[in-house]
Amino acid sequence: MKNFKLRKYKKEFPYSYTLGMAPTVELLQKKPEVVLGVFVHPKYKPQTDGKDIFAFCKEAGVECVVDEKAFNRVAAKENVFVLGVFEKFTAPIAKEKPHVVLVNPSDAGNLGTIIRTGIGFGFHDFVIVEPAVDIFDPRVIRASMGAVFYARFWQTEDFTTYMSAYKTHALYPFMLDGSVSLKEVQMHTEQPFSLVFGNEATGLSAAFHDYGTSVVIKQSSEVDSFNLAIAFGIAAYTFSKFK
Amino acid sequence: MKNFKLRKYKKEFPYSYTLGMAPTVELLQKKPEVVLGVFVHPKYKPQTDGKDIFAFCKEAGVECVVDEKAFNRVAAKENVFVLGVFEKFTAPIAKEKPHVVLVNPSDAGNLGTIIRTGIGFGFHDFVIVEPAVDIFDPRVIRASMGAVFYARFWQTEDFTTYMSAYKTHALYPFMLDGSVSLKEVQMHTEQPFSLVFGNEATGLSAAFHDYGTSVVIKQSSEVDSFNLAIAFGIAAYTFSKFK
Repeated sequence: MKNFKLRKYKKEFPYSYTLGMAPTVELLQKKPEVVLGVFVHPKYKPQTDGKDIFAFCKEAGVECVVDEKAFNRVAAKENVFVLGVFEKFTAPIAKEKPHVVLVNPSDAGNLGTIIRTGIGFGFHDFVIVEPAVDIFDPRVIRASMGAVFYARFWQTEDFTTYMSAYKTHALYPFMLDGSVSLKEVQMHTEQPFSLVFGNEATGLSAAFHDYGTSVVIKQSSEVDSFNLAIAFGIAAYTFSKFK
Repeated sequence: MKNFKLRKYKKEFPYSYTLGMAPTVELLQKKPEVVLGVFVHPKYKPQTDGKDIFAFCKEAGVECVVDEKAFNRVAAKENVFVLGVFEKFTAPIAKEKPHVVLVNPSDAGNLGTIIRTGIGFGFHDFVIVEPAVDIFDPRVIRASMGAVFYARFWQTEDFTTYMSAYKTHALYPFMLDGSVSLKEVQMHTEQPFSLVFGNEATGLSAAFHDYGTSVVIKQSSEVDSFNLAIAFGIAAYTFSKFK
């Protein structure tokens, strides 16, 4: 097993953790080359209807250690019995594919859910405009249920940097006062496009009205706005190629 | 102020709590008649861009008490400075309206998010088939951001009881192996209808294939299934009258 210290996660670590069976299995299957180790709690009980963690590790050629202390150090308050350690990796976004652009997402659960939902609808390319929650935060990985290992991503500090780099992408910023209703958008999904979402509390700034076609998800006045992950799910579904 | 004991919430209490400004304001505005009291933490600071909690209480004719102890008793670990106490109420579902039917929802955050999203898309009537998370659980109310005070609801023990009571509703059970893709469903939204969803982990049982038109949200094989609240959001958006 390679060199790392088991401690509560911090953003500056060159490695991170998968907490729980589901994300650890995705890690082992999709990114075996970055796995540094897998720990199993003495209380771990395999489910009867599938392979156990030892089988998945064996398949990936990864050592699997039964060790309670690892859990106390990394995930003391979490109710998990499987823990993966992996080296952070890069996965550059694809130029010709549709992009999901998240401007200043601040909630780890939302980001993980968005990545999972995006992957489910065939979106693999995520642009995260900082300041933002760290994509390798174990809470993001857990909320994504490991879908983050299927994602390509680019973290950048400025939306205009993204725009200049991907000029051919048609932009669809989602805004409460967007100019076109999502149900009436003329989609050109044969051209690469970008679904753009703002921060949970503040949304996108007014400047985004000038970037492409701003889109609104029409709703009742009884609710201020939808949860970010819900709004993204609706947009991704609508633009998805899955019929 | 009426009679209640400030203690950590339990399902058997005849009253419950709103934790935080947003749900407490919705409570005061939408259901002032059930409010038993409002408590404000000494650290509460009004936002500069709106009315403060004292103004909302005055408008609703409700006493508002600054008291730190109330928070220690009810919401020790929560980061909230406004706390409402209200009598549980009934709000019978409407016979001619579309219904949202949730079979055995188990997660408080999901239920709250679903209610908020439903209200946002014009769905006010929620049927909850037990066993299920308690709709008055403060975590549900908080996740709904107070939208629960706009909802009508019926908690029942058996889906067939619901079916017999609302025979004219067209049923759309959402299932991973549904018979029709959501993008191809022939909607008859002039007739009352019911969107039916199963438990987070287990979904709906195979029996639901025989109830109305089972619907699938098509997705990539890279993800097992969507988060329940996301799937509901997509369905509610699709069936919503908001264009």
